[in-house]
Amino acid sequence: MPSASDPSQRPDPLEKVGPRRRHGLVIVNTGEGKGKTTAALGVLFRAWGRDFNVRMFQFIKHSTARFGEHRAAKKIGLQIESLGDGFTWLSKDMDETTALAVAQWERCQDAILHGDEDIIVLDEFTYAMHYGWIPVGDVVETLKQRPEQMHVIITGRYAPEELVDYADLVTEMKLIKHPYEEQGIKAQPGIEF
Amino acid sequence: MPSASDPSQRPDPLEKVGPRRRHGLVIVNTGEGKGKTTAALGVLFRAWGRDFNVRMFQFIKHSTARFGEHRAAKKIGLQIESLGDGFTWLSKDMDETTALAVAQWERCQDAILHGDEDIIVLDEFTYAMHYGWIPVGDVVETLKQRPEQMHVIITGRYAPEELVDYADLVTEMKLIKHPYEEQGIKAQPGIEF
Repeated sequence: MPSASDPSQRPDPLEKVGPRRRHGLVIVNTGEGKGKTTAALGVLFRAWGRDFNVRMFQFIKHSTARFGEHRAAKKIGLQIESLGDGFTWLSKDMDETTALAVAQWERCQDAILHGDEDIIVLDEFTYAMHYGWIPVGDVVETLKQRPEQMHVIITGRYAPEELVDYADLVTEMKLIKHPYEEQGIKAQPGIEF
Repeated sequence: MPSASDPSQRPDPLEKVGPRRRHGLVIVNTGEGKGKTTAALGVLFRAWGRDFNVRMFQFIKHSTARFGEHRAAKKIGLQIESLGDGFTWLSKDMDETTALAVAQWERCQDAILHGDEDIIVLDEFTYAMHYGWIPVGDVVETLKQRPEQMHVIITGRYAPEELVDYADLVTEMKLIKHPYEEQGIKAQPGIEF
């Protein structure tokens, strides 16, 4: 049965995007499957196409990371700011890992509370909450105080319940079939990173 | 427990992407949730960052569509080719809808068999198989004959079992919470289209 999210029910492609009142959403991409960060990148790309002001903060990924998304972002002048040490719970120096997450969160808070971005992505931020480096209550409190029209997208596994409860749109990426685990194929540049 | 797809297990950001032998994957993004097309866009963006040769064919979406992705793609010279009439099973003229899907599939076949793309996306193509406009057996046969290194990404709900069986990586985007249905919020430009 056709439902509200059927493709046929999507906005008419010919419809002009008028000055409709924008309602900022909190979007969470979680689950064990692929596509959490990638879908957030897709949103940034799409929004950039509409000249929106977008910005991505990455947790976990090393500040010197030069993955496909960093190269692409650099080419079009889109801001991706990484501040991680490339590790999480396997880190040999947990104090350092925690300190980096806290420092990155402070930058995010500033952007969320005082920034003029249309869309802010907090990539792999759920881990920082899940592992107790950042209190989820603080995160929800900050999100509540954001400018009314700002969208915030948070990605990563183990999205805390309190965040899910507050979020507007939550999608679980569920792994049905995985070539790397099943067939021993290595992660592919361009596809996965 | 850390597993092969933990972030901590991802390729070392500092590792150079060497000339590893590439193994082309068939990737399916399906399910009722958000992010199927968006994640495919994210892959295109990331791969474009690595100077890969990428191309997206869209089914269903009208050939005159000017969504965020079309605007963004145009800005960076990325190819998105739409050939739909904007409808599916609600179409008033099903012959026309079917004919468009068949014509678009012929273009896709040509690209898959003879193209030099690194990644080809068939966006919302599952509907064409699900509704019987294109036999899934033909699709799998064509995929089998593609150049060894070519990745093909297929998106849409109702991915046919035969396609899932053949695919390397299948992710189900599962709807956990949806603001448009629950809160009556309209789809947002930049986020959804």
